[in-house]
Amino acid sequence: MNASLVAASPPSRAQQIRSFLQQNNLQAWVSWRPDELLMLSGYFPFWGASLMINFVDAEPILFVPQIEPRDHLPFGLRVEEYPWGDLKCGDPYAVLASAVGAALANAKVKAKQSGMNPSAARTSLPIQAAEQNPMPESFAELLSGVASQPNGQCLANFAKLYSRKTGEEIQAIRLANQVATVGLQAFIDNLQPGIPETEIAAGVESAIYRQIGRDRIFHSRGWAMVQSGPNSADAGRFNRSTARRLEDGDLVLIELATCVNGYWSDLTRTAPVGSPKPEATSILETVTDAQQAAIDAIRPGVSGGDIDAIARSKIAAQGLAAYFTHHTGHQVGFRYHDPGFGIFPGESSLLESGMIVTIEPGVYMPEQRAGARIEDNVLVTESGHEILSRNTGSERLGSGGGEKPS
Amino acid sequence: MNASLVAASPPSRAQQIRSFLQQNNLQAWVSWRPDELLMLSGYFPFWGASLMINFVDAEPILFVPQIEPRDHLPFGLRVEEYPWGDLKCGDPYAVLASAVGAALANAKVKAKQSGMNPSAARTSLPIQAAEQNPMPESFAELLSGVASQPNGQCLANFAKLYSRKTGEEIQAIRLANQVATVGLQAFIDNLQPGIPETEIAAGVESAIYRQIGRDRIFHSRGWAMVQSGPNSADAGRFNRSTARRLEDGDLVLIELATCVNGYWSDLTRTAPVGSPKPEATSILETVTDAQQAAIDAIRPGVSGGDIDAIARSKIAAQGLAAYFTHHTGHQVGFRYHDPGFGIFPGESSLLESGMIVTIEPGVYMPEQRAGARIEDNVLVTESGHEILSRNTGSERLGSGGGEKPS
Repeated sequence: MNASLVAASPPSRAQQIRSFLQQNNLQAWVSWRPDELLMLSGYFPFWGASLMINFVDAEPILFVPQIEPRDHLPFGLRVEEYPWGDLKCGDPYAVLASAVGAALANAKVKAKQSGMNPSAARTSLPIQAAEQNPMPESFAELLSGVASQPNGQCLANFAKLYSRKTGEEIQAIRLANQVATVGLQAFIDNLQPGIPETEIAAGVESAIYRQIGRDRIFHSRGWAMVQSGPNSADAGRFNRSTARRLEDGDLVLIELATCVNGYWSDLTRTAPVGSPKPEATSILETVTDAQQAAIDAIRPGVSGGDIDAIARSKIAAQGLAAYFTHHTGHQVGFRYHDPGFGIFPGESSLLESGMIVTIEPGVYMPEQRAGARIEDNVLVTESGHEILSRNTGSERLGSGGGEKPS
Repeated sequence: MNASLVAASPPSRAQQIRSFLQQNNLQAWVSWRPDELLMLSGYFPFWGASLMINFVDAEPILFVPQIEPRDHLPFGLRVEEYPWGDLKCGDPYAVLASAVGAALANAKVKAKQSGMNPSAARTSLPIQAAEQNPMPESFAELLSGVASQPNGQCLANFAKLYSRKTGEEIQAIRLANQVATVGLQAFIDNLQPGIPETEIAAGVESAIYRQIGRDRIFHSRGWAMVQSGPNSADAGRFNRSTARRLEDGDLVLIELATCVNGYWSDLTRTAPVGSPKPEATSILETVTDAQQAAIDAIRPGVSGGDIDAIARSKIAAQGLAAYFTHHTGHQVGFRYHDPGFGIFPGESSLLESGMIVTIEPGVYMPEQRAGARIEDNVLVTESGHEILSRNTGSERLGSGGGEKPS
């Protein structure tokens, strides 16, 4: 083994945020985006209206709405409630801003020494996933007197914290993949001619929802999109389910996003119904081979571009390069799509142990009325890789309840 | 009929945005938040990465990702693609910003004459609902050279456009309520001792998903949260499903958000399983009476505070005022919670025809291990009101597929 490729486990998140603050000449960081809270503390907000301050030399403080469920608040963290959801409070955000300002002043942190990501864009959904982020449009402005908007380089440095997952986070993302696998089994079980795409997708989501309560799962939600036959040829552009009924000879593709306790899995499977034409079968074989070749090459020190090139060349060797129209993959775990470098042409950034990437080559041929993509979530280990989304041991979770389409 | 209460239908959205621009001394408005696009044009973005410019004296232009599904793009609107999702384009947002700048320059609109909402906070989810808003954190900054951030008054004026729905929008929200009713029927059908909350909720969501393809429905998604027995007493603070199995004597509450083609319904029902204790039954009766009394009073010219007071006094008359801990309602339709004034204590703003509000009083008593809330969506009509979420005629949609819990 090449000693230079052996990296130690990443330091704890508490150590990481402290180092980040020191390296960026900051005394405190204010987090309120759900994915930031999850990454920094393991706490996944219910309403999405929580806020945490991390200090360079003091214990963090977490502010939560007074109506937040208390049974999933983090242990070992100072938690303060603020009157969000209180009928008698006309402006809870002003109360929060005031409390944040007082906490920063108490720690003698000036506004220019305190940073925050001011934008609600690209955050993850909180547990209450039907709701847009509930912080008001003016929230960053409200806090501007006590926390500064860092420059782009500082925000980019912060985003780098997402890449290397800790041991606990890997376990949590492994669990998300186990739950997703239960959903994929419902997909496979229900593939038969005559069933609408929507019915298969709804059954998958149902199986995932029903995992709540098993194995420390307090939140489990899937977004399944099923495309069959000619619709599968659209899957390189978008994923959605229609009322089309499966037909013998179809390729059927499922794109499946799964969020378990805040951690995400992002998977795709493509399977035949009955006996597809050789051209369609060939597409599926090409994609399967390309994906496995790319996965086989994953280890620390290999670049994103290298991995992409392996998948792309396998597809090109079959004369299908023009039909692989998207990136080979991206980082995943705290969001459906994590920040950080991706697996795409020319990307020179190197994989490190603890990173989790999707590998998802695809070929989409409208003229064959067929498309295929296979996507797995792959952990970069010190010696190579581990596919988190295969042989997951999901049997212990049981099925989604044995639901069958009508 | 009091002639002063008879209001004409609201002007078309094209007329409204033109009037808004003129009254706010603007020449153009740049929209990219999904709820803004829907409200201004009826177009509901798939990816959430579309952008529209409305001009005071020119036809609007809609920019969409080149991988946006084409079959739901709006008719009669100039549509231009930009290379979002193009493997060969390194920075599609820069291309978009450049195209927006060129379109504004071509119309001789200066940056200070062009406004936009710069924040991604509180937007609706797009069709690809698992994903956070895909525009980058720096998107507003990227456009800052061509469009200005309006002051708070201007943004508040824009938000007022959400309140009065047009005839077409009312039909679309009616459809969302019809679909939601199919989900509620699955809730009622599956209420029996021994069934976990999660299983009932998953069945409701499944029934809603399966409506895609019926009656011009291209997108249908529900978020169902079921709370039974002691969990129902939490429903004034948060809504979620657990693995708790229903027991004889429970009150069971479902909070249901439904999005159909971009338009939202927000409903709650509470139903008994078997024979609850008289104390629990009394809670449910009190809430039902309070809700009906509030709805009965809805007509143009009545204030939000008046309606809230009616519901609140009915509950207070039973000695339960302290257990009704939240607002009576809010506006709904373009989002799960629309902007604009709500139905809460002291609100002096007056209802107008075309507004749609939720009416959702609740009583939550941990000591009785029971809570209840009933929520409907009510259209303010010229002569009074119409409850969009009762007697919806959802029978024509059929059931969600006859799924039964296992």
